[in-house]
Amino acid sequence: MRSGLALVFLLAAVLCLSAPLCAEVSLSQETQACIECHQQIHPGIVADWQTSRMAKTTPGEGMNRPASERRISATTLPKELLDVVVGCNECHSQNQAQHKDNFEHAGFQINVVVSPSDCKVCHPVEADQYGLGKKAHARGNLTDNPVYSVLVNTIVGMRDYEGVKKVAEKPTPLTLNCTCFACHGTDVTVKGLRKVESPFGDFEVPDLSGWPNQGVGRLNPDGSRGACTVCHTRHAFSIAMARKPHTCGQCHLEPDVPTFNVYQESKHGNIFSSSHQGYDMEKVPWTPGKDFRSPTCASCHNSLLAAPDGGTTIAERTHDFGSRPWVRLFGLIYSHPQPKEGRTYIIKNKDGLTLPTAFTGEPASAFLIDAKEQEKRTTGMKRICGSCHGSAVVNGHFAKLDNSVKEADAMVKRSTLLLMGAWNDKLADKTNPFDEGIEQKWTSQWLFYANSLRFAGAMMGYDHAAFHYGWWNLSTNLQDLAEAIRLKKAVKHR
Amino acid sequence: MRSGLALVFLLAAVLCLSAPLCAEVSLSQETQACIECHQQIHPGIVADWQTSRMAKTTPGEGMNRPASERRISATTLPKELLDVVVGCNECHSQNQAQHKDNFEHAGFQINVVVSPSDCKVCHPVEADQYGLGKKAHARGNLTDNPVYSVLVNTIVGMRDYEGVKKVAEKPTPLTLNCTCFACHGTDVTVKGLRKVESPFGDFEVPDLSGWPNQGVGRLNPDGSRGACTVCHTRHAFSIAMARKPHTCGQCHLEPDVPTFNVYQESKHGNIFSSSHQGYDMEKVPWTPGKDFRSPTCASCHNSLLAAPDGGTTIAERTHDFGSRPWVRLFGLIYSHPQPKEGRTYIIKNKDGLTLPTAFTGEPASAFLIDAKEQEKRTTGMKRICGSCHGSAVVNGHFAKLDNSVKEADAMVKRSTLLLMGAWNDKLADKTNPFDEGIEQKWTSQWLFYANSLRFAGAMMGYDHAAFHYGWWNLSTNLQDLAEAIRLKKAVKHR
Amino acid sequence: MRSGLALVFLLAAVLCLSAPLCAEVSLSQETQACIECHQQIHPGIVADWQTSRMAKTTPGEGMNRPASERRISATTLPKELLDVVVGCNECHSQNQAQHKDNFEHAGFQINVVVSPSDCKVCHPVEADQYGLGKKAHARGNLTDNPVYSVLVNTIVGMRDYEGVKKVAEKPTPLTLNCTCFACHGTDVTVKGLRKVESPFGDFEVPDLSGWPNQGVGRLNPDGSRGACTVCHTRHAFSIAMARKPHTCGQCHLEPDVPTFNVYQESKHGNIFSSSHQGYDMEKVPWTPGKDFRSPTCASCHNSLLAAPDGGTTIAERTHDFGSRPWVRLFGLIYSHPQPKEGRTYIIKNKDGLTLPTAFTGEPASAFLIDAKEQEKRTTGMKRICGSCHGSAVVNGHFAKLDNSVKEADAMVKRSTLLLMGAWNDKLADKTNPFDEGIEQKWTSQWLFYANSLRFAGAMMGYDHAAFHYGWWNLSTNLQDLAEAIRLKKAVKHR
Repeated sequence: MRSGLALVFLLAAVLCLSAPLCAEVSLSQETQACIECHQQIHPGIVADWQTSRMAKTTPGEGMNRPASERRISATTLPKELLDVVVGCNECHSQNQAQHKDNFEHAGFQINVVVSPSDCKVCHPVEADQYGLGKKAHARGNLTDNPVYSVLVNTIVGMRDYEGVKKVAEKPTPLTLNCTCFACHGTDVTVKGLRKVESPFGDFEVPDLSGWPNQGVGRLNPDGSRGACTVCHTRHAFSIAMARKPHTCGQCHLEPDVPTFNVYQESKHGNIFSSSHQGYDMEKVPWTPGKDFRSPTCASCHNSLLAAPDGGTTIAERTHDFGSRPWVRLFGLIYSHPQPKEGRTYIIKNKDGLTLPTAFTGEPASAFLIDAKEQEKRTTGMKRICGSCHGSAVVNGHFAKLDNSVKEADAMVKRSTLLLMGAWNDKLADKTNPFDEGIEQKWTSQWLFYANSLRFAGAMMGYDHAAFHYGWWNLSTNLQDLAEAIRLKKAVKHR
Repeated sequence: MRSGLALVFLLAAVLCLSAPLCAEVSLSQETQACIECHQQIHPGIVADWQTSRMAKTTPGEGMNRPASERRISATTLPKELLDVVVGCNECHSQNQAQHKDNFEHAGFQINVVVSPSDCKVCHPVEADQYGLGKKAHARGNLTDNPVYSVLVNTIVGMRDYEGVKKVAEKPTPLTLNCTCFACHGTDVTVKGLRKVESPFGDFEVPDLSGWPNQGVGRLNPDGSRGACTVCHTRHAFSIAMARKPHTCGQCHLEPDVPTFNVYQESKHGNIFSSSHQGYDMEKVPWTPGKDFRSPTCASCHNSLLAAPDGGTTIAERTHDFGSRPWVRLFGLIYSHPQPKEGRTYIIKNKDGLTLPTAFTGEPASAFLIDAKEQEKRTTGMKRICGSCHGSAVVNGHFAKLDNSVKEADAMVKRSTLLLMGAWNDKLADKTNPFDEGIEQKWTSQWLFYANSLRFAGAMMGYDHAAFHYGWWNLSTNLQDLAEAIRLKKAVKHR
Repeated sequence: MRSGLALVFLLAAVLCLSAPLCAEVSLSQETQACIECHQQIHPGIVADWQTSRMAKTTPGEGMNRPASERRISATTLPKELLDVVVGCNECHSQNQAQHKDNFEHAGFQINVVVSPSDCKVCHPVEADQYGLGKKAHARGNLTDNPVYSVLVNTIVGMRDYEGVKKVAEKPTPLTLNCTCFACHGTDVTVKGLRKVESPFGDFEVPDLSGWPNQGVGRLNPDGSRGACTVCHTRHAFSIAMARKPHTCGQCHLEPDVPTFNVYQESKHGNIFSSSHQGYDMEKVPWTPGKDFRSPTCASCHNSLLAAPDGGTTIAERTHDFGSRPWVRLFGLIYSHPQPKEGRTYIIKNKDGLTLPTAFTGEPASAFLIDAKEQEKRTTGMKRICGSCHGSAVVNGHFAKLDNSVKEADAMVKRSTLLLMGAWNDKLADKTNPFDEGIEQKWTSQWLFYANSLRFAGAMMGYDHAAFHYGWWNLSTNLQDLAEAIRLKKAVKHR
């Protein structure tokens, strides 16, 4: 009889995995009130939240876990958060004084947008790390950098031709929000109030501009920067999802930042695609080889990694995504040491431009990490590789990476010298360096092709080194650029 | 002892999931006869069918389900179909008089091709809806439209150069079947009979042309249009597979219709890729948030959606895939209101061309749905979004969508005006508007780049709005077009 | 009580699936010694190996399986391998006399690189088949072929422009290893010794060049060719992974060899993406329809396939991947019958070039299989198709394939004739046929676009036939080539 009961419990345990509310959870009264209406109006939000760890565990329980397994980095928590699960009200009511999007709603004071400052109540270490990095400043790094602003306006602004003359227009805000700022982050502001009709009556709610958006450098109505939900998608806020490569692949895609594509074709990506169903993507700390057979983006760039012995840390968790890499490959004219801080618009190169290198490649070293810090980071990254690879593999890989970066930069420099020659010969106008035919070839050379080669070398996606926006394109585009300049000289039709 | 038995039953129940025939199923005598030979000759077909719902459930059982869960839309069924599972003979013997591909085979009268008219015996609502839409007419919408016929012949026809003169050839039928008609549908006709050798003796069977094909507008030997199996792949006919984005991705792919690619990089696509293993893809009706965390193509474009309460319908099922969208983004020069009916070759624009807009963008309004119908459809789609999103997100998204479409169209118009200028200046010959260098740049502008931007705006795939065939390409291609025309003027080498 | 025990065993059995070492396995003393240190230094390798079949089964047990299910093809095995699982020492200590990378390490003689010759101890049939094919010779087929060597050097070598003159440089070894040789295979040699520091003291280990690498034609330090681990990724060596399309997709990717991309968009690829979770990817022999619903690359190109009756073989296993196809589509100017053997650099065409066809298409028939062998292979492949498809589908498909290949070749020939005309007119210099603008257009015509069309026809990826590097590109590129040549004539600016 007892074993019969055991069977019932076994089945019950199995069923509970897919029925998150079958165990009794402690909802706050406020959250209970939210759910009562909102699960009727847009039930998907509630159902999604019910799958989350936040809907099943109270912060108090989370605080009681061993330090290495803890997901909460706060050492103390507000008393009212300890014994209820983290529901609607717990997130949408923090820091109300700062929130310009706060409004009275059915007797509650609600913020529309939940920001990193709100998540910080339980996750201060992560929020602070994130705030230091380039992601948090991704919007300002475009808008406050005069060079990139010209690039942005040239690419996504309407243009017209009157006879031979080009007429450029400034991009509209909605277009910027659908293109560059979709990933870099919008400025979310409150325009006023608008009326919403619902089965429960009409409501006045804040009317937002720049919304919806999940850009990494979003300016929030509480003055904070960023969006935790870009990776920990609302309302499940899953660590597993944040660790999966598809999440990074929302923004880091070819042709401009082909890391997701390079990963997919790499041996690591192949192992992931072929065997990830068996991984434990939720485990904290995360153990290479045991919890996952192949690294994902998160394994190398931010997760807390531990050896199978449980005690030895291989890499500390970080939410400053620029803090592990030593070299910056990302979308710029030349590779260079990582910037010292997240705001790249403060960098000035030797020619006074807000770029981390000169047009001819010299780094703006005062703003970039030094050789010693680079060495320290390289050693840290090699330690991660070393979880699964001997030193012959690791050193051999780094030699290939360094070589790819060096030759990609060299192939860019040759195109830059050709373009500078054309500028000198008045075959193109340097005022806007991005808007003429030969300038666009030059932009493709670094923004797409050199970038592909660099990332291919870094992450073993060798078709992206050879044919797929790599060497084939670096070579033929340089050839095309040279021929276009030659033709311009021959025809002199400007 | 009883719990021991329970354990045995538990195990048996688990095993049965992977052994579809372990339960007793009622095969018709005819189907039993088919299987006896065919599982020896091409066993994969039989094994695939055994995984299907059709192989496990009789239509009579299906009719007894609650109305909202029913997969059969017929109100009455032929008596002989009620109590046997749907096997070989049940599908391959319908409507014999109409089937020019019907033949005597081992004592049975068999149709080679199963058509929407045959599926209609049990699924009349779906077959009728499908027959009204553009998919059912996808073949005629190419072949009976003189403008598109020129485009088709220009792209997939052999061409040659004798000195400076281009010589174009008409595409071969097999090439058309491997390219445009692969998705749009072939004309399946019976050429005669051919002999087949088998372990059971020689047989004479119909010799088909245009076969195999699963194009959505296939002309079948019974005179019907379409192929249910393009989405409900034979012989499993799975609703789960039809709901997965890969199925739509067989045809709706970049560069011409990049909806699958845009979806994959969107937040929705990321959630799907990262978490779909936990979805219930078979459930009817389908409940957002509960059965799936992220929508797939089917969620928004055709599935029956219901609220978690089980009673409230969010969207009715439709198999007319043009009936939910209000605007048509799909592969044409300019966006425009959805056509009133599936046959688009009957449309005439103000210049008398069979196009839904003029070259300069004016819609052929008499053939397109009006503003009121557009409004109604927009409201319906927003209701689907509303399952998981509040009105701030929904309205903000639609504003971005509208803006993307508007600016994509404007960037096309500027390229059209440049081309029209070139035609006027005799720099190109308008007779075939698709076959010269500058005309091909213009075609790319709308068929690839504007299309990418439109779909990116519609489905949040913002790298396709910015760099991946989006704004970058719209801008540089317009620049290249202007420069090519300028060079043609300068060189006057035609 | 007994059923309670049964429950415990059931649970234990379930748990054991994820805890490979919970059953007692017989490690050799040597392997036990390796693991003791190495699971501390790079635990991921050990954890990965523990998931493998090799870590759980002794070769002796493997030999006792029925012949058709056996994974070991040796008829006798060294006695010391029979009763221990295949661990570190079993693989890293074979054939020491041949291994220039053998070294003394902590009292053992260890080879760094495990080669096909080492795997051959248990898998001689597979190693021998592999050694015959083009994969094993993939490196020499580039380096020992003067035509391809020029192509390689042109694509991945740095180039510069001094005024109008192009200066080409030879590619560096590291660049070659990151591009062409990443897939084709490096030459792994021992440069000397290097010192490694570890928690267990310092060691001297061989210092390798050309490492790491998993190219299919790798030259190993024991003189053998190839890398079994490119598909059976170390250290899990999984047959399931080797059978998954992502594995082939490490190298066979667009734009040059778009088979993975074509597969993904095909009906077969769609079925795989939509339903592969339910497949038995480990089963030997592998039964179409039962173990898998859609073929993967391996199903058609190398796996042992059997009918569901268990006895009838549909296709014998082969590791000579060129032995099933009758026609070679792969990356070359024109399609042609498969070469008679794996070394393609011995082929001479009628003009004395090391190419399987002349520039004008005539095959170098003496080096290629004859019509009879082609017919035999076609019949073998059709038998595989026949597992799931009747002859109408199979024959119709092959007619489309043949037509696609024929027309792709014809579109290449037209571009070749244009280029030959330009060479004759001194508009380009034939010495290096790959390095000028119009030559690069010609190279794209066959290496990317004709290749896409051929593979699209072969594997039903029809968007790759129409728009995605297929007909659209074949047509517009031919047009561009003709216009570029015309412009060169007009400007005469060379």
